[in-house]
Amino acid sequence: MIRVSFDQVQNKLATVLRSLGFSDERAAVSARLFAETTCDGVYSHGVNRFARFVAMIRNGSVDPAAEPRVVSCFGALERWDGQRGPGNLNAHAAMAQAITLSHDHGIACVALANTNHWMRGGTYGWQAVDTGVIGICWTNTMPNVPAWGGTEPAIGNNPLVIAVPRASGHVVLDIAMSQFSYGALESYRRRGEMLSIEGGFDAQGKLTRDPAAIEASQRLLPIGFWKGSGLSVMLDLIASMTSLGNATHQIANDPLRETGLSQIFISIDPSTLGDMVKLDQIADQVVASLQRSSPAQEAKPVRYPGENTLRLRKENRRLGLPIEPGVWDEICKM
Amino acid sequence: MIRVSFDQVQNKLATVLRSLGFSDERAAVSARLFAETTCDGVYSHGVNRFARFVAMIRNGSVDPAAEPRVVSCFGALERWDGQRGPGNLNAHAAMAQAITLSHDHGIACVALANTNHWMRGGTYGWQAVDTGVIGICWTNTMPNVPAWGGTEPAIGNNPLVIAVPRASGHVVLDIAMSQFSYGALESYRRRGEMLSIEGGFDAQGKLTRDPAAIEASQRLLPIGFWKGSGLSVMLDLIASMTSLGNATHQIANDPLRETGLSQIFISIDPSTLGDMVKLDQIADQVVASLQRSSPAQEAKPVRYPGENTLRLRKENRRLGLPIEPGVWDEICKM
Repeated sequence: MIRVSFDQVQNKLATVLRSLGFSDERAAVSARLFAETTCDGVYSHGVNRFARFVAMIRNGSVDPAAEPRVVSCFGALERWDGQRGPGNLNAHAAMAQAITLSHDHGIACVALANTNHWMRGGTYGWQAVDTGVIGICWTNTMPNVPAWGGTEPAIGNNPLVIAVPRASGHVVLDIAMSQFSYGALESYRRRGEMLSIEGGFDAQGKLTRDPAAIEASQRLLPIGFWKGSGLSVMLDLIASMTSLGNATHQIANDPLRETGLSQIFISIDPSTLGDMVKLDQIADQVVASLQRSSPAQEAKPVRYPGENTLRLRKENRRLGLPIEPGVWDEICKM
Repeated sequence: MIRVSFDQVQNKLATVLRSLGFSDERAAVSARLFAETTCDGVYSHGVNRFARFVAMIRNGSVDPAAEPRVVSCFGALERWDGQRGPGNLNAHAAMAQAITLSHDHGIACVALANTNHWMRGGTYGWQAVDTGVIGICWTNTMPNVPAWGGTEPAIGNNPLVIAVPRASGHVVLDIAMSQFSYGALESYRRRGEMLSIEGGFDAQGKLTRDPAAIEASQRLLPIGFWKGSGLSVMLDLIASMTSLGNATHQIANDPLRETGLSQIFISIDPSTLGDMVKLDQIADQVVASLQRSSPAQEAKPVRYPGENTLRLRKENRRLGLPIEPGVWDEICKM
């Protein structure tokens, strides 16, 4: 692992994006979001993901020049067409508009159709809380998890992000609806490790901790079994119906052709009702109540969602972003 | 099990509620919601729960005459005080207002503090979809699940309801954040059965399917392990912060004194953006895509959330509500 400064990473990615047809401004924002993702420790969706993003621009799945447009709007609800533009820029613009609308209406929603993979979902949660609002957003994906009771991929792992502002450290949750991602299964398999808990079914339909057996069967486990399966279906329904976009079953089951996604961005601005000091106290007290829990393992206190992100962000800003040499070499040659 | 007609159940419950200080109209609505819950097959939160509801009126936790009041409002966002009134009436009124506001704003939210147990959460999801809108709502609860990494109850099982309208059968999800409820654990134990999957930790901190061991340790498992734990925390934060109400850690850990809850009711009215026919087609296609899945067990096709509810509702309307004789006797003596 090498360490490369945040600015150096952002500048290099922006240069590559400009060469692919991004405007200066859009290249800078997209590159920043990639660098921030690695900086925050979500290595799978930051710099490590850049080569695939570039490949999807080159194969035509992502149109670097396309900007989202408003299809229809009514009060605090807007329907957007992402026009197959870069997923992180589309999502960033949609959340920005939801935030703005929520200042006028208290709560607002932008439903975005025809977009691309948003990379790290948590990005748009942090974007919301950094402006002082509550953010809720989710995306559908290609079918990559069997529905509960089924044997072949039929539902998406549909990441869900919920973010709450707090002066002394925002609380941000970013979870996919599968217990493990294919990326996580691959990492365990390469290290020769079993999963810490059962993560799916083997070819015989038995629950297993063997990552290779789950990769082979394609039978990943939804979180909470039938519950996460149902939650995935609901997120897909709301995203596709409200945006009039594709549902999971219509999205190509191919990581390099997974395009035309549907997403939801909700912002709640509690400052419109006043009492923001009290709100912050409530958040602090909830965090403190978690931290008072007796830990199951000594010296491993209960953490709140996002706590680790802030620690890694600080460390990686100071030391430089940790990147595998091969990944950085590939980017430097672009 | 005896069968009692829907109308007979509703009338009897309403009579009891009137004797406890409910107005005629409020007694009729509350009684209907209890009867509908049993009719829909959610036996744990319908007629079976009525005696506990009455006990909480008698011990002063629920004020039968209290009505919710608006504390502050801004556009599509309202903050309400439930004034410790009956939980199902407060929730029903809050969702009704969210629905009304969403007709004017596209999306709307009512945050309700200081309320009581809403009984079946799905009730307010069905309420939303029956008027053609998308409903999202959740409640916090007393601490009844350990946070991930902790050993004693610190977070709520915080039921989450998501409901999407569909002409040929609404899609409604109603899930708590624990894999099993205490009620479910008790049922398994009484039948002398092990859980179908691991549902918590035993006293030694090992995952177990033994319901009695989990009841003894009080270490229920959140859905998706760390993921459901984080989701529970976020739902609690948004509900308590937006309503300025209690968070889980402030709620008495006693089923008969579990009062002062915080809840969120969100309605999205997609008809404000038009194209409702297309929306319904999208929903039908998602349901059809699930039903095309190869089932893991022969003759057990994949179901969509809420599908079973509609089947049971029809059956129980026809045959009468199934009620344990002892439960009905107790109510008849009230």
